[in-house]
Amino acid sequence: MCPTEPDSTEAAWQKLLRIRQSIDNIDAALVHLLAERFKFTQEVGELKARFGLPASDPEREHRQIARLRELAIESNLDPEFAEKWFNFVVTEVIRHHIRAGAEGEEREIPED
Amino acid sequence: MCPTEPDSTEAAWQKLLRIRQSIDNIDAALVHLLAERFKFTQEVGELKARFGLPASDPEREHRQIARLRELAIESNLDPEFAEKWFNFVVTEVIRHHIRAGAEGEEREIPED
Repeated sequence: MCPTEPDSTEAAWQKLLRIRQSIDNIDAALVHLLAERFKFTQEVGELKARFGLPASDPEREHRQIARLRELAIESNLDPEFAEKWFNFVVTEVIRHHIRAGAEGEEREIPED
Repeated sequence: MCPTEPDSTEAAWQKLLRIRQSIDNIDAALVHLLAERFKFTQEVGELKARFGLPASDPEREHRQIARLRELAIESNLDPEFAEKWFNFVVTEVIRHHIRAGAEGEEREIPED
């Protein structure tokens, strides 16, 4: 066994707690980045509505997915997971914008 | 109209392209953070399996969700979205670990 590896249940618990702190830090960063992404997609939605730009752009979406799959492979993340995750976020963002639109004025749906 | 706002369709397109670059940068950061998170949950799974630690910890999960909802509110992100997103990631991570376990040796399911 490698000397830095825990050699008792107590040491394993200590290591688990340290890893959980890292997971919590990463999750906080993820939430803040999602908040920033959401601000940008809101801005895109407003721009598209005001200037009558097309609401959806399937080619852009294909490019986004292909790029995220490549980035996932480079960083040793399952590309299927990355694609599924991206689709989840895009779907939720659209749903949220539709709900926001229903509460206020009608607007185009951003797909960025 | 504010002077920094686009005043023509051409200017709106230019602004849209700039925003898309920001969205792409954020998405790259999100994928890299997800890759890092996944490495940690893999480590947790291995630790739990080796030392016979409990696979699931519902109290920790409740604390995680409550904390992420608070962080979402602070950063002006819909807390429902943050919770749904967290549940999606946890479910996918568990599914992935189960699949990885089925291909190799049996292991406990990490829920961190």
